[in-house]
Amino acid sequence: MNVAQPIEWTSQGVVMLDQRRLPGEVVHHIYTDYRDVAAAIRDMVVRGAPAIGVAAAMGVALGVERSSAATLDDLRAKFPSICQTIAETRPTAVDLFWAIERMKRRFDQLATANASLDAVRSAMVEEARAVHAEKRATDEAIGRFGAEFMPAAGKVMTQCNAGALATAGIGTALGVIRVAVEQGHKLHVLVPETRPYLQGARLTAWELHEGGVPLTLITDNMVGHFMKTGTVGAVVVGADRIAANGDTANKIGTYQIAVLAREHGVPFYVAAPISTFDLTISSGEQIPIEERPADEVTHLRGVRIAPEVAVANPAFDVTPARLITAIICERGVARAPYTESLRRLAESASHSPRAGTAGQRSAM
Amino acid sequence: MNVAQPIEWTSQGVVMLDQRRLPGEVVHHIYTDYRDVAAAIRDMVVRGAPAIGVAAAMGVALGVERSSAATLDDLRAKFPSICQTIAETRPTAVDLFWAIERMKRRFDQLATANASLDAVRSAMVEEARAVHAEKRATDEAIGRFGAEFMPAAGKVMTQCNAGALATAGIGTALGVIRVAVEQGHKLHVLVPETRPYLQGARLTAWELHEGGVPLTLITDNMVGHFMKTGTVGAVVVGADRIAANGDTANKIGTYQIAVLAREHGVPFYVAAPISTFDLTISSGEQIPIEERPADEVTHLRGVRIAPEVAVANPAFDVTPARLITAIICERGVARAPYTESLRRLAESASHSPRAGTAGQRSAM
Repeated sequence: MNVAQPIEWTSQGVVMLDQRRLPGEVVHHIYTDYRDVAAAIRDMVVRGAPAIGVAAAMGVALGVERSSAATLDDLRAKFPSICQTIAETRPTAVDLFWAIERMKRRFDQLATANASLDAVRSAMVEEARAVHAEKRATDEAIGRFGAEFMPAAGKVMTQCNAGALATAGIGTALGVIRVAVEQGHKLHVLVPETRPYLQGARLTAWELHEGGVPLTLITDNMVGHFMKTGTVGAVVVGADRIAANGDTANKIGTYQIAVLAREHGVPFYVAAPISTFDLTISSGEQIPIEERPADEVTHLRGVRIAPEVAVANPAFDVTPARLITAIICERGVARAPYTESLRRLAESASHSPRAGTAGQRSAM
Repeated sequence: MNVAQPIEWTSQGVVMLDQRRLPGEVVHHIYTDYRDVAAAIRDMVVRGAPAIGVAAAMGVALGVERSSAATLDDLRAKFPSICQTIAETRPTAVDLFWAIERMKRRFDQLATANASLDAVRSAMVEEARAVHAEKRATDEAIGRFGAEFMPAAGKVMTQCNAGALATAGIGTALGVIRVAVEQGHKLHVLVPETRPYLQGARLTAWELHEGGVPLTLITDNMVGHFMKTGTVGAVVVGADRIAANGDTANKIGTYQIAVLAREHGVPFYVAAPISTFDLTISSGEQIPIEERPADEVTHLRGVRIAPEVAVANPAFDVTPARLITAIICERGVARAPYTESLRRLAESASHSPRAGTAGQRSAM
């Protein structure tokens, strides 16, 4: 199956698919300067937490690989500014800081060992590629654990884009669907367009279409109608943040899809890496909701579609755990009561950004 | 309170607000030829069942008033073609045919009585103005019956545009809100944008803003979030067709709002004239759902926002009666069991299009 890749390390440089121009144009950029990678992250050429993490790691690696430094001391002097430039792009992206920290630790290890300049350069590139490979492995594990919950045939629904474009792997929610299709499930995906930013219409519809997965694009207010009149076998969505009790923050609209799923007896699955678990908060009520600019609602591609009135634009909503049939991560499947099941999975994890930043991982 | 009027009879001709250009531009057209009124109906300068009925009546009246006929016989010969031109504009608009039939009956009555040409002309204009006045009276009655169900203060929600722009009165659902506001209720309206055609964003937000009613525009996938996190005191929507058992067809998205209202304990009201009652069908399952063109979903104002994939675009959905707290019409308020309450109201009605076309009304 064709999987659209948002970012790749190549001998020419870091190649990114410009997601801002999808679905109208498929444009790739080749970056040979880490400052251009930083600009690409900031300007949302790439988006989605895991993919941003991969981009950050590759940005740091690119900065090291192409640095003009002639000695290790010289490179050591230049390194903090490379990391700083990448860090200043998306201030709320947890994966970004996790990836930078990981690259810093690797650099410190190499510098402490007085590795040769060439060895440092190739080892840092290897580390960035390892980050990417781990993200891919995470998605594939989620896909395998989740596929068994997909119906043998029929309609499934997702929301937003929890796909390859967001993760740089096969996707989380879309990874589940992909693996199921590869295993022979005859799935047809209902894709809500996901206003206001239209990630469903622009990205998920494009990605599934490119991958040869049958789909139907719908507007967000058709969800209930299709659950009532068609047979939807399952809903599978991604997550931005999962509280200790299983409450899940995800793209706006996810909550009402979960309510509608429950109303119609449709199982509702969350597919997300352990890096989205935030066990420091006991429930979703503690998750702050980002309010985004009004013009995302009132304008579309620069065209005004509403008068100048008050607008609300919460980026996320919180789906209470009671509406979630199961949470699928790379280590397995959590079911209610989530406070126990999520902690058990998190404690067995080895690749969690939060675990990493909390210093629970052994040094690389 | 300022009420935007979509259509008015004036001494200069029939004045229409061009709703296609809202909210960006407020443009009025003055039509002095009935063929231009027909084109305006066909091209959706005016929309909304009751407003189309008013436009049709005014179109026929304009054709008679401005006819070159020198004798009553001459006018009698020209009259069918006027009616035919107006009838060929929107083949599924029940109110259009009801209005034309009413104008025909009035013309036949005048012709049979051998009224003078001038008398026929002024009587036909009067008849069109009477149609308009009756629509206004209907809305005002609905507004009065419905206002008491609005909270004294706080948020209410609607869907699509069941407002003045659709009815040529004060609106049905928006009429309820308007009357409540005039009576002193401190309401703030949450307006879902209503994809794909954006009647909420383009028309309802504009109309409420013009009328000085506080509102917040949201996307359709924010409904559940705001019901969960804010206090929504009531939902009030219009209707396209109400079956004998109370099942209600209305703009796509209405059904899921009703499910979400029930989930959050929010009362859900339908405000619609008796002309939308279709007691010949026992339940909503018999209501066919119009499928509209894919490009309404994939394009916005000519700009492609999705790839070339399969699209669903049902114009309406059906809300089952069990989710409806009450149905408010110009004769009063129906509550479950609707099969009895709707019939009782319909049988007491004197201004119903369907009652009219069914020959139950005395000749005018």
